[in-house]
Amino acid sequence: MTLLNRQWLLARRPGGHIVPEDFEYREQAMAMPELKPGELLVKSLLFRCTPAMRTWMKETSQIAPPMAIGKPVTGSSAAQVIASANRDYPVGTVVSASTGWQDYAVIRPPAKADPLFKKPDGISVVDFQGVYGVNSITAYFGLLKVGEPKAGETLVVSGAAGSTGAVAAQIGKIAGCRVIGIAGGAKKCQWLLDDCKLDGVIDYKVESIEDRLKALCPEGVNVFFDNVGGETLDAVIENMARFGRIALCGQISSYDEGNALAPGPRNMMRVIYWRLKLQGFLAFDYPDQLNKAMADLRQWRERGLLVTRDDIHHGFALLPRTFMRLFDGSNFGTLLVRNDDAEVS
Amino acid sequence: MTLLNRQWLLARRPGGHIVPEDFEYREQAMAMPELKPGELLVKSLLFRCTPAMRTWMKETSQIAPPMAIGKPVTGSSAAQVIASANRDYPVGTVVSASTGWQDYAVIRPPAKADPLFKKPDGISVVDFQGVYGVNSITAYFGLLKVGEPKAGETLVVSGAAGSTGAVAAQIGKIAGCRVIGIAGGAKKCQWLLDDCKLDGVIDYKVESIEDRLKALCPEGVNVFFDNVGGETLDAVIENMARFGRIALCGQISSYDEGNALAPGPRNMMRVIYWRLKLQGFLAFDYPDQLNKAMADLRQWRERGLLVTRDDIHHGFALLPRTFMRLFDGSNFGTLLVRNDDAEVS
Repeated sequence: MTLLNRQWLLARRPGGHIVPEDFEYREQAMAMPELKPGELLVKSLLFRCTPAMRTWMKETSQIAPPMAIGKPVTGSSAAQVIASANRDYPVGTVVSASTGWQDYAVIRPPAKADPLFKKPDGISVVDFQGVYGVNSITAYFGLLKVGEPKAGETLVVSGAAGSTGAVAAQIGKIAGCRVIGIAGGAKKCQWLLDDCKLDGVIDYKVESIEDRLKALCPEGVNVFFDNVGGETLDAVIENMARFGRIALCGQISSYDEGNALAPGPRNMMRVIYWRLKLQGFLAFDYPDQLNKAMADLRQWRERGLLVTRDDIHHGFALLPRTFMRLFDGSNFGTLLVRNDDAEVS
Repeated sequence: MTLLNRQWLLARRPGGHIVPEDFEYREQAMAMPELKPGELLVKSLLFRCTPAMRTWMKETSQIAPPMAIGKPVTGSSAAQVIASANRDYPVGTVVSASTGWQDYAVIRPPAKADPLFKKPDGISVVDFQGVYGVNSITAYFGLLKVGEPKAGETLVVSGAAGSTGAVAAQIGKIAGCRVIGIAGGAKKCQWLLDDCKLDGVIDYKVESIEDRLKALCPEGVNVFFDNVGGETLDAVIENMARFGRIALCGQISSYDEGNALAPGPRNMMRVIYWRLKLQGFLAFDYPDQLNKAMADLRQWRERGLLVTRDDIHHGFALLPRTFMRLFDGSNFGTLLVRNDDAEVS
């Protein structure tokens, strides 16, 4: 049996803004692979596009090895097992795995059961990649473990309409914080106020973040969940309250800038004197608390306390152009691309 | 009764490197002040010069108000009570207070007994300002509370031959860490090895910090106690181990640069991906643990585990020139200036 495996390859290292020419389409006949014990052959159903993937395209990529030129773009998708050498994952099982941008991939499951890897019963494939996906887990641990929000405190979230930011902001509300979101554009800001029930918003496209923070948070910001970095981080540092905590989740302001590093926070003396904490984290740092996190997310979701948006596109051919939406501000919600013949919702 | 009060005033805001013309000497006849209840009139015995004072000279000074032009330079000294309206502090008591650079000052003691304010019995005035002074307390809380060193971990200290750095490094040894010090010049490095018993040193004047860290700390740095900031901080961040902690104590690399802010850490993606923590702190954040800290320092000192150096100069006239030694690397130890007729040791 032969499979036709469509792929999107990284054609070259993007110089700055991503352009379609950075990618190359290829169709390849692929012999049915021989699976080693434990392995799975999966077919991609729903690709998840995340800003971090942009950093893996750089030569300077750190946590993940830099993507290889001429190889499929690295990224995760919800995928279905179509051949299995692992009795824990029979054919038909849906998993979330680093398949890359291609139809088929051979995957080795993690050693331990993981609700982020194997789709739990009773949730849709879209929710598995969206509200119950790694973005929400990132928000959960980043806010609660690093941000340490306390009831009555003020939380600011940048990239607040993004798939991680919106969840962090709403968990902040659940924790009893006053929550201000920073996002780009009236539509996102209105959604944060109306649907996510935030206490205030700053539209960075038309407002000065620093001026608005001064007005909205006269007592200072206690917790900052930062997806953006750069000037946004600087502006919030200037408005932090003493002993404030900054959960460093991402630096999207610098991702789309070739190999150059964005400048770090300018005012380190304020970090010292205001006793601020800046701390990085990853979603995978708390494996023993993952089931609790998933249970909390499901309960909050079912009680209507956790509103999310999915930004679903359709068609393998559109992957590169859809991915580019992450960096021009036009993406609004978890960015997902449904594979052509995948009937997932 | 009239007192002759000699003063060193801040003549202007230093533009960059401090020069003698930034200061102005004045002698003033001063009527014996009328003390309000609780106040003390003190005479300065031993001035302590610290890098932080340089930041207070800037318009951008944050934690302390910027020093005023034409007023005595702000700074602390060990001073003796010569008139008292406070029965807890009779004439003759030695205190450490923000007298400024002048012979006489009126002081209001803190509301609570404070071993950093009132010289404990049995220690010398020099030790009161030196090994049992605020520098050591800064090292103690910064290392133990923010750095959270664990036995077997690797600690790096910048400004390691300074009065705070050397204490932080030795507390790291007491905590069971392998300790590497960064300092400038063979003499300081040798002292750190021979007297402070550090495990390794980097002479930043002749060695690449980054290359040497790679060689000395192949498993990465778990704790960094940073007095320097700027490029030193960058170089250590590149060599931190995952989940490393950085105690931000000072940024001496940028103090002597007018109002410009030194650039913050460049590689924020590494901070995120390596899950690093950068945290500011001040010595005064743990008032309820101050007596324990002092007891620990005295015990360590008496057991020979805590070696310090004092860099004592003599004469009020020399205050500005002595202060400048903090920024040209020639200072080695806690920088103290004995007032002309003070017989302290």
